[in-house]
Order: sequence, then C-alpha cells, then structure tokens
Amino acid sequence: MGSIYGENIHVSIFGQSHSGGIGVTIDGLPAGKTIDMQQLGEFLSRRAPGKNKYTTQRKEADSPEILGGIIGGKTCGAPFAAVIRNTDTRSKDYSNLKDIPRPAHADYTAQIKYHGAQDVAGGGHFSGRLTAPLCIAGGICKQLLEQEGIYIGAHIASIGSVQDDGFDRVSLTVQQVLAPGKKEFPVNNDAAGEQMRAEIEQARMAADSVGGVVECAVAGAPVGLGDPMFLGMENRIAAIVFGIPAVKGLEFGNGFACAKLKGSENNDPFYMDDGQVKTRTNNHGGILGGITSGMPVIFRAAFKPTPSIGQPQQSVSLSAGADTELVIQGRHDPCIVSRAVPCVEAAAAIAVYDAYLSYKKGVL
Amino acid sequence: MGSIYGENIHVSIFGQSHSGGIGVTIDGLPAGKTIDMQQLGEFLSRRAPGKNKYTTQRKEADSPEILGGIIGGKTCGAPFAAVIRNTDTRSKDYSNLKDIPRPAHADYTAQIKYHGAQDVAGGGHFSGRLTAPLCIAGGICKQLLEQEGIYIGAHIASIGSVQDDGFDRVSLTVQQVLAPGKKEFPVNNDAAGEQMRAEIEQARMAADSVGGVVECAVAGAPVGLGDPMFLGMENRIAAIVFGIPAVKGLEFGNGFACAKLKGSENNDPFYMDDGQVKTRTNNHGGILGGITSGMPVIFRAAFKPTPSIGQPQQSVSLSAGADTELVIQGRHDPCIVSRAVPCVEAAAAIAVYDAYLSYKKGVL
Amino acid sequence: MGSIYGENIHVSIFGQSHSGGIGVTIDGLPAGKTIDMQQLGEFLSRRAPGKNKYTTQRKEADSPEILGGIIGGKTCGAPFAAVIRNTDTRSKDYSNLKDIPRPAHADYTAQIKYHGAQDVAGGGHFSGRLTAPLCIAGGICKQLLEQEGIYIGAHIASIGSVQDDGFDRVSLTVQQVLAPGKKEFPVNNDAAGEQMRAEIEQARMAADSVGGVVECAVAGAPVGLGDPMFLGMENRIAAIVFGIPAVKGLEFGNGFACAKLKGSENNDPFYMDDGQVKTRTNNHGGILGGITSGMPVIFRAAFKPTPSIGQPQQSVSLSAGADTELVIQGRHDPCIVSRAVPCVEAAAAIAVYDAYLSYKKGVL
Amino acid sequence: MGSIYGENIHVSIFGQSHSGGIGVTIDGLPAGKTIDMQQLGEFLSRRAPGKNKYTTQRKEADSPEILGGIIGGKTCGAPFAAVIRNTDTRSKDYSNLKDIPRPAHADYTAQIKYHGAQDVAGGGHFSGRLTAPLCIAGGICKQLLEQEGIYIGAHIASIGSVQDDGFDRVSLTVQQVLAPGKKEFPVNNDAAGEQMRAEIEQARMAADSVGGVVECAVAGAPVGLGDPMFLGMENRIAAIVFGIPAVKGLEFGNGFACAKLKGSENNDPFYMDDGQVKTRTNNHGGILGGITSGMPVIFRAAFKPTPSIGQPQQSVSLSAGADTELVIQGRHDPCIVSRAVPCVEAAAAIAVYDAYLSYKKGVL
Repeated sequence: MGSIYGENIHVSIFGQSHSGGIGVTIDGLPAGKTIDMQQLGEFLSRRAPGKNKYTTQRKEADSPEILGGIIGGKTCGAPFAAVIRNTDTRSKDYSNLKDIPRPAHADYTAQIKYHGAQDVAGGGHFSGRLTAPLCIAGGICKQLLEQEGIYIGAHIASIGSVQDDGFDRVSLTVQQVLAPGKKEFPVNNDAAGEQMRAEIEQARMAADSVGGVVECAVAGAPVGLGDPMFLGMENRIAAIVFGIPAVKGLEFGNGFACAKLKGSENNDPFYMDDGQVKTRTNNHGGILGGITSGMPVIFRAAFKPTPSIGQPQQSVSLSAGADTELVIQGRHDPCIVSRAVPCVEAAAAIAVYDAYLSYKKGVL
Repeated sequence: MGSIYGENIHVSIFGQSHSGGIGVTIDGLPAGKTIDMQQLGEFLSRRAPGKNKYTTQRKEADSPEILGGIIGGKTCGAPFAAVIRNTDTRSKDYSNLKDIPRPAHADYTAQIKYHGAQDVAGGGHFSGRLTAPLCIAGGICKQLLEQEGIYIGAHIASIGSVQDDGFDRVSLTVQQVLAPGKKEFPVNNDAAGEQMRAEIEQARMAADSVGGVVECAVAGAPVGLGDPMFLGMENRIAAIVFGIPAVKGLEFGNGFACAKLKGSENNDPFYMDDGQVKTRTNNHGGILGGITSGMPVIFRAAFKPTPSIGQPQQSVSLSAGADTELVIQGRHDPCIVSRAVPCVEAAAAIAVYDAYLSYKKGVL
Repeated sequence: MGSIYGENIHVSIFGQSHSGGIGVTIDGLPAGKTIDMQQLGEFLSRRAPGKNKYTTQRKEADSPEILGGIIGGKTCGAPFAAVIRNTDTRSKDYSNLKDIPRPAHADYTAQIKYHGAQDVAGGGHFSGRLTAPLCIAGGICKQLLEQEGIYIGAHIASIGSVQDDGFDRVSLTVQQVLAPGKKEFPVNNDAAGEQMRAEIEQARMAADSVGGVVECAVAGAPVGLGDPMFLGMENRIAAIVFGIPAVKGLEFGNGFACAKLKGSENNDPFYMDDGQVKTRTNNHGGILGGITSGMPVIFRAAFKPTPSIGQPQQSVSLSAGADTELVIQGRHDPCIVSRAVPCVEAAAAIAVYDAYLSYKKGVL
Repeated sequence: MGSIYGENIHVSIFGQSHSGGIGVTIDGLPAGKTIDMQQLGEFLSRRAPGKNKYTTQRKEADSPEILGGIIGGKTCGAPFAAVIRNTDTRSKDYSNLKDIPRPAHADYTAQIKYHGAQDVAGGGHFSGRLTAPLCIAGGICKQLLEQEGIYIGAHIASIGSVQDDGFDRVSLTVQQVLAPGKKEFPVNNDAAGEQMRAEIEQARMAADSVGGVVECAVAGAPVGLGDPMFLGMENRIAAIVFGIPAVKGLEFGNGFACAKLKGSENNDPFYMDDGQVKTRTNNHGGILGGITSGMPVIFRAAFKPTPSIGQPQQSVSLSAGADTELVIQGRHDPCIVSRAVPCVEAAAAIAVYDAYLSYKKGVL
C-alpha cells in the first residue's frame, strides 16, 4: 500500500504510465463546494509536457474525465474520481528495462520488490506521469483553499548553480505567491530564469540532465493549522512531497541553514502589528510546534537531476548477473524542475487542505 | 489528532511534560518476539538529560513502567503500553508563558489553536520530554529490526559550523553504524566532538544555544522496503522525523547537494559484487523510487538551535496586545543535538520496522 | 469520507448511479498474484440485473474496464483500478426526488447532509448499483483467498417467511459452500427456492417488495484470522457488510438465538478429531474472541424489503413543508436478496482477505 | 493490530486483565471541552463488578488515573490518557488454561494466533475487564455529545426468555433514554427486571449462565450523522459494538424482523410535524443510507451467555492432543448483560461522537 494520502480526505492515485489510464479519487470532500473546471485545466496545463524544448516531447491529453463526485459544478458528497487516458504510449521503448535497470530509477528496486511482476512500461506506477492525477487532486484542493482565503504558489529556486530570488518570507503577498505560476517558466527573477534555461539547454546538448530546488509558499493560512507530533504541518507536507518522484530533500523556513546558527540568531521575535501577532523574521517558515503561526509557510524541495540521460551508463544485466553498459532510448526531460513546480503546489495544497479540515473540527 | 504514527503498527504517544505521566502504546507488534528490557534501558539512557553540563540539569527517572503487551520478556499480541511518571516537575517556572509566548516555541500557536486550553507547563505535549516515549517505541523497534539483521545508528554530523566525519555511504558496516551510539558524545571523529563540545560550551556561557545536524544510517535492510508514492521510505521516515521537536530539514543521500549536479554525476552506477547488485556510489541514499536498494539508507535531519535561551528576547503580551521583553527562566539545553541522536534512531526504527511489516506481507 | 475500507488493503469505491462511471481501486494487493478475468466476469454476472423477471429490468454492461494494477494477468504492485461505464441511464425518472423523498431511501438524509448538493439521479452514490464495484473488489479477493485454500459462499436463507435449509455449521465442505452460487437462484433447497420465487412474484404483482436473509460461510480459514477488540472478524465483517444497501441486521453463529440460551447449551465443546482441535457444535460461528477457530465461519445478514415500491406512499414536499403522496416511477426489484448474495460474498471476501494479510504479518 | 478505533478520534485500548494496568488513550478530542470527572466516575460505576450477587465478586478499583489530556477539568488538545491499576489479581486461578482451552472463550484461538505467547492470566487482553477503558472513553464521548444535545442510553431488552419493554422508537424522550441507567438493574419495566434477576439467580444456582439482549437508543442526533457505504452509522456502530466481548448479533430498527416484511409494511412514511420532517414509524432505526434521519437511533446487541460456567465441560488438552474434561475455577458472572449495558452505551457514544466530528467538517 502507498498510493493513498490523507487524514480527513483520502487521495488515492492509480494507474501506470502505459496502462488503461491514470487517475485519482478523493474521498471526504465537503459537499456543495464549487469546482471550476476551466481553472483546474489551466493548473494542469502547467505540468503538461511537450510545451517546449525544455521538456519531454511526449504529448499527453491530460484532460481529466470526471467519473464521479461533481454534479452541476459542485462537489456532491460522493468521492471525486477522475481518469486520464493513456494514449500516446510507445511500450517498445522500454522493453529491456526488466533486465538492465536504469541507474537512479526504481527499475531495480521494483523488480526485486514485486518479484518481476511490476509494470515496467514507461516507468509503470513510478512514472512521473503519475503526478498528473496528483495535480488533479491538488488543483481541486487549491481551489477549495482559495475559497477560504489561503493561497499556494511555488517557483524554481534554483537549477544547478543558478539561483532565483527567494520569496519574501516576512511580508509575502498573495500576488507574489501566485506570480511565478503565471509565467511559462515559473521564477521570480526572469533574468535568473534565462540563465536557468541556458543551464538546461547545456545539459540537453550534453545528453545530460540537471537538478534543482523548488520553493513553495502558503499565504493566508490562519494560526492553528497542523497538529502536534506526527501530524504537524512539516510532517504532513513531507509525507506527500516526498511522493513526488526525484525529491531528495525538504526544508522549512531556514531549514538546514538554521543548524549553523545560534538561538539568538534563529529565534524569530514576536511583535504586535496593528493588533496582530507577527514575527520580525521568519526563520521558522510559518510553522511552530507543527502548527501554522500566521506567518507565510515557506519550504523548499530538492530535486535530483532526471535519472534518464542519453549518455551511456554502467548497469548490470540481472539475467546474466554481470555488469553491462546501458544506453537509454526514448524521450526524456533534461530537467523536470519547471514541471515539478505545480506538482509541489499540488502536494502542498492537499496537505494544507487536509489539515484545514482537521482545524475546522477543532473550532467546533 | 496527530500523536499516532504507522501503517502496520500504530505508535500512539501521550502525556505532557508535567502531567501524570508520559507514555506510549504500540498496537500491532507480532507476538512471541523477545524484548530485552536491559537493552531498552541502555538505549533510553542515551537521551536522558542531566548526565553532564552539556544538557539540561533536570533529572528524569526515565525508566518506563510496562503496563501491557509483554509477558515473560516476550510480546504477547496485546498492545504494548508503557508509562514514565513525571516526578521532577516545577510548574511554577512556566506560569507566565500563556501570556508571553517564547519565540520559536509552540506557545503562541498552541495558545491560538487550543483556545487557551493547552497545558503550558513545561511545554505540555510539545515538550522535548515527549521524545522519551518515542525512544521507548523506537528502542523496541530497533530490537525487532536487529532480530531481522537490520541495524540503525546515528551520529552528530555537525554542531554550528563544526563537522563530524560522515558515515561511509557505500561500504558501511554494522559496527560503524553502531559505534557512535556507544560513546558519551555520539560522533565518528572524537576530535571533531571535542570542538563541538567547545561550541556548545561557548553558547552556554553566552546564555545562547546552537543547532546542528544528525546523520542516521540503516544497514542490512533488504531490497524492497517501502512502497511507491506516499509510503516510500523517504515519506515514511519524514512523516515521523519531523515529529521530533526542532527538526526543520531532512535530506536523503546526496540531498540538497544533488540539486546542483548533473545526472551523469548524481546517478549511481550499478555493478555486480560477488553475485549482489550494488551501486558504486550512494547518492541515492539507499532509496530508489521510495524503495530500499540494498545499499545503506542514509539521511540527515537539521535541528534548529534550542529556542529557550537565557538572553532577553522580544515577545508580546497577548493579554495586553503589546510588545514586551521576555526573559526565560528554568533549565534548558544549550544544545539538544546530542540527545536528539537516539531520537532520530528511534524515529527511523519505527518507520523502518513498520515498512518491514508491509514488506513481509508482500512476500507471502 | 466513507467509501474506503480496509487495514492492509484499501478498497475505495467511487461513482454514482448516473455519473461518468462507477469503479473501485484496491491499494495494497500483493504483486505477482494471478487474477482470472473470466472467473471475475462470471462472479459479477451473478449480481447483474436484468436477467429475469425477479430483478430490475435495467440492463447494465457490468463488464469492468481495468485501468491499472494488472499486467499479463497478474497483480503488478500498483493499485488495482477498474471502472464500469454508466450507459443505460434515464435521469429524468428521478427528477422530483430532491423535493419529495422516497420513504426508507437515503433521499431525505442525503438532502440534508449534503445541503442539496447530492447527486440524486438513480440514487447517486447510495444506489445499489454501487455494489458492482464492491463485487469487483470482492471477486478479486475471493480468487486470492481461494489460492490460499479459503472459500466463501452464500445463499438466500429466507425470503419473507420462506426458509431455505441452512449451511451445515459443523461439517461444511467447500463444495457445499460453493453450490448455491452456481444456481440461477442461490439456495440450498430448490423447493424452498420455488416458494421464494412465488413470494417475490406475489410482491411484484402487488406493486410491493419483500425482504430476506442471506447466510454466508467461509470454509478453510486457518485458526488465527482476526484481531482482538475492534478488528475481530465480527467487527471486520460487520464494518463492510453494513455498507451493502438495505442490510439492517447481522449475526454470527447462533446470533440472536444464543441470547436465549444457557452457557451450558451455547458453549461449543472442544474435541480432538484426527489430530485437529474442533468443536462438536458451532454456535460460535467459527469466531472466538474475534479470531477464527478453524470451524466454518457462519453469519447471516438481514435485508429489508426494497424501499422502492409501486404503491402510493406518504411523504413530504420539502419545498412546500407539507405532507404529500408519492408514486415512484421507474424500474425496481421487488426483491434484491438474490442479487445481494454475491454482494455479501464479496464483502466477506474483502474482510477476510484483509484479515488474512494481517495474519501473515503475525506469522513472520 | 486491532485495539484502535475511530476516524476523527482514535481510541486505543491497552492492557491485560492481570498486567500492570489497563487503560485508554483518545487522540483527537477538541480542546477546551469540559469533562466532569464525578460524572465519569458515576458512569464507570455502572459497569463495576462486585456490587451484588448477580455479578462477579472480584473487586476492582476502577477509578481511572488521568495521565494526560486534561488540565483544569478541560481537554487541552493533547491526547487523553488514563490507566486503571490491576490490583485484585489472582493469577494462579488460570494456570492450566494454556493447555486446556475453555469452551466459547478465546483461549484456543489466542493460543494458536500468538504461538503460545499470549497473556492467559484472567483472559489477558480478551478479558471483559478491558471494557473498563472502553467505558472511560465512552463516558467522555457521552459527555461531549450531551454538550451538543445528543443523549445515549440503553437497557436490558431481554435475559433468556424474559423481555423488557422496548424503547418507544417513535417519540422517545431524553428522559426515557436515560431512565434505565439510573437504576441498579437497568430495565424499563421493573417487574420484568425482577423476573430477569430470578432467571439469572436460577442460572447461578445451576452453575450455569444466561445470555441476553441490550437495546440502545440515541436521542437528539441531528439529521446527517454518518457517511455512505463503509462509514454509515450502522457500520460505525457495528465496528465497535462487536468489540465488546460476547456480542454475536446486532440489528438496527426493525432489524431481522424487517426481512419478513413487505416494503409497504416496513417503509416508514414521512410527514411534517410542526415544521419538522419525521416518520410515523421508525422501522429504519433512525438511519437511512447510513445517515441519521433525526428519528431516534435504535439498535439491539445480542450477548451470548457467559462462557465461564461452573459445570464440567468437554475440552481438549493441547499438549496431550486428547479430549479431557474441564472444570473452571474462579469468580464469574452468571450473566454479564446488566454490566454490558453501559459498555454498549460507551461503544455507541464513541461511534456517534466520531461521526459527529465528521459531520462538523461537512458543515463548514
């Protein structure tokens, strides 16, 4: 088991890259909430591949077909369910991957775990394609959160060694949160974005790939989201963000940097701002004791470089029990970070909305 | 809700710093497994405070009283339950914290979330003291894992700017994993440890505190622990490690560093080693697609500096709605990282053992 | 939330009677298990409507389309997902039910619970049609259980006042368990079956309906399925069987009859039978302390008469706030009990297989 | 796993009859709710043994010690935890039960399931004594429900062949619901109660035991508690009530009787009563489609006769692999039904309060 997330809503993702379809169910949505399908489609298009030369050339019709849960544009109390057909599939590209696992992919671990019964075509259930249903669920949660005044946005914080300007941790506006998502290349500083594209293009020319970091922010969250211990906001967000393929690190607020600081440097002083309690700095990333503080929630997720590269790599033949060289065929992103931005937003939206429903129980 | 963790076992932690007691239940342990109470006590003593001047002077009798689940030294199929009495409590130390929240603590967020009904004494349910029951549960899971040949150990990777030698990611031995835990100050390089102690002492003298990083390793895990998507090993570990107070970052294998690399640099080549599939490097931290690869599992958790410091700090009076200065009284660690080492091991052990039980279902 | 069941597997049912489709996902199935689609189709045809005059004349193409989880006839480790299209829908039949709720239906309670946003067409998510995906999930679990030597079957124990012969509680064979399911009208005693059909026909002629009882048996279960307290086999079975529409009662073994007995009458004496511990009677229904005893598991579920009847009934107009008379149009079963038989088997199979996976963890 | 229940609150019960203690944790209670300890104690005393000759003579100090979750008489947001010490234990009474299992007890099934590692003293985790922590959790939920205007009460519906008057299903008042619980012997009709006591005394004189039925009612529940399918109110109540030892049957409203009726007889007509939608009869037991209808919720649980009787019984020696006679020593109830009444109320209260918290999420 593993493809289900949530405490109050249950998000269940199914399908493989080249199976009949991929999809998602969400059990537990309140009834009577408006879902704007146009807006959902626009959100999904942000992760869709094939838009430009920086991403994979595979075309997907990522338009979800709604199977249940919505009537007349509103949630109806029944579980939400949607499916995306798998159409542009070329299964023969992947024929030898059961024998010769791709480095840094799940081929080998899945082969052993599932005794060779796993669906290897296109990466199967481990494919990045499965982030499409994640974005469906997340796109819905984003809308539901916006109806409560809570906004989520993300940007590329870095590609390789190129850094974007970070979000303003202290006085972040809703407009700032949403701005990068409106661009084709989601950064704060477009000049940095140009350099990033150059870095990606360089990797592509070298039949290589490059990693990066996504920074995500939540604005408008009330004080009190999240629960102590294992359902703190950090735990909740981590439990879903690490489900996005290629994420290898996650930090909140000052994150790893705070480990080098003194308490007197890292502690965020409280002050009153026009009747509201705020902190002058936001090293805590909007979360104290697992609970939102009213300051912007800020976190960063580190993505490893796309494992699929065109260069020959060392691997093994499982059948022969011997070392061998592998050359990966097929279409692959030299950098998935730009497409990962809406995925991180989606993951955060699911986590925050789930926590929001718990919060509502507590304010009976 | 939030103090429960697990898929196959449910670890439920209860109690507040100054309540009748703190404790833990573990539902779902297999019956007939030997638990060595002496060994558990030794593990718990590693996080116990009051051992030296580097940690808080509060004395705890952290010897757990077993309420159920073990008969004749073996698990009996009923839930495990244990309690630690809260004896050395000085509630008056904390009397004004409901009005003037301590910076970087959960005082303010808990006050709002729980409408002022929270137990504020000693940090209540948010106290670091609640890691004692976490260590009870983790110590039991560690023993159960060792019975399956899986070993977990951790060390202080850094305090402030002082770095310890990292674990050998590629050829880590069980002995290496367990070595730091046998020392009073759990590091690989004792010289670095001396410098760390100096850094801590310096913070203490300045009525300040300092953060650090804990690195944890799992040796002996079979290929196949963890599940895709939301129950990958990264998700499972993250969902519990972020429950340890003060953790603000987590990374696996190469972690944030991999975001700066090319695929050709970060991908770990497979090779055959005496009939076994291994990787020549271990940037993936022993986890591919959420599933253990047979290589050592390696992760690092960043701890912020202890928020409680002796220096005056800026805060607010919630009742007055005005800024004020706060001076924290009481006994506090200038650095909790050394005591956090067994906590990280405990969290990892619970996550890995829970995944191990899922793994066993899959190999029916 | 409510449409998810299970501890080790998660069965998630989605869709409404007249939505895009109805379907099911099963997360947590072991990989590499053979699923016979032909056999699944045959099982599903047992609940399909439109077969004869005793059941609703609505035709369904209940042939599920597999979206994921199965490759080459075997489970692949990814979640199983299947959908059945809703084709033969006549939404206009149900137009006024939002205002005038049908007695004994969920119309009124859903209207209030979901603030009028519920999907009312064809009963929405409350439709008996949703037992089709239940049967898909149950049919798969039945096959997986049969691979472990565990067989589940059910029969109509009564319709109105007509009784079938009960299963032999003490020496039930696999053949006896499966026999009723092979008949068009699933009873043990065909003469009783004829009388039942007459009772149903009589109800149909009177524009009325009739209730009944389904008895279900599990043969071949090892000693040890089920867990104490809230995950005992009774709890597990009850938690899913009451999810079948119209079930209003459930009893195990001697059930309500045991409440009238003395301990000396109801206690089942143990004895040794060729090296095996058995009981001479089986008043306990194969479950002691929530755990299977090795004797056949026997339970009975009471179904109320189909609420949809052709006779005029008293109801209210919610908009007018006044009493009114209701005449239900459309196609309805005068008795759903024969079609409920495979549904009860399906529910039992899911519950037992889920418990079986827990059992396997315990015998590490 | 098995000793945890709940969707929004998690009730976790631990301990064995003769272990260090028995207890309960409740995670997920809203903060700031008043809990009256005096009232809780009075509720617990209703199930306490040793009060008269009709129940076991073992004395228990069932006064719970609060370990966490309550400060100043209010819930504080941390998990509630309480323990009851096991003091009056006579472990030697039970020495041979590992070899010779008692008929109708869990001795044999536990022996096999737990490979002989189970705690057999006093019934271990299967002991009826474990209903004390159930009543603690239930007593708290009862108080929280009463604060929302929802009242739960139960009475003995029958002992052997003696019937009490049933609750008035249609126009039940809060006073009627609570009346039986205020009596030493909880019945509606005291004359019937006298006959029941005679029946029990007769069983006791014959070294025998007798079963019975408990009827439980919930008054004041709003329309809309419960969710479709697997979290309907019937499922929720069933999933916990079957966790009370000795329950072998459960029915809602008309229950098994409705299986003999026509739809025209069993359907409850709606009508308007002073602006409120009501039903003229209540065969549906206050639940339609799994959701409360605003009519009183009514269910009945069948209890088998206490398995421990003084008469010699046939059993087996597991070590000898041979039939043998068993004479049970120790103190035992000839009838546990009167003590089961508050247990059923407690179970219902937990189920209803858990559903109530879900309901609150839906009315955001």
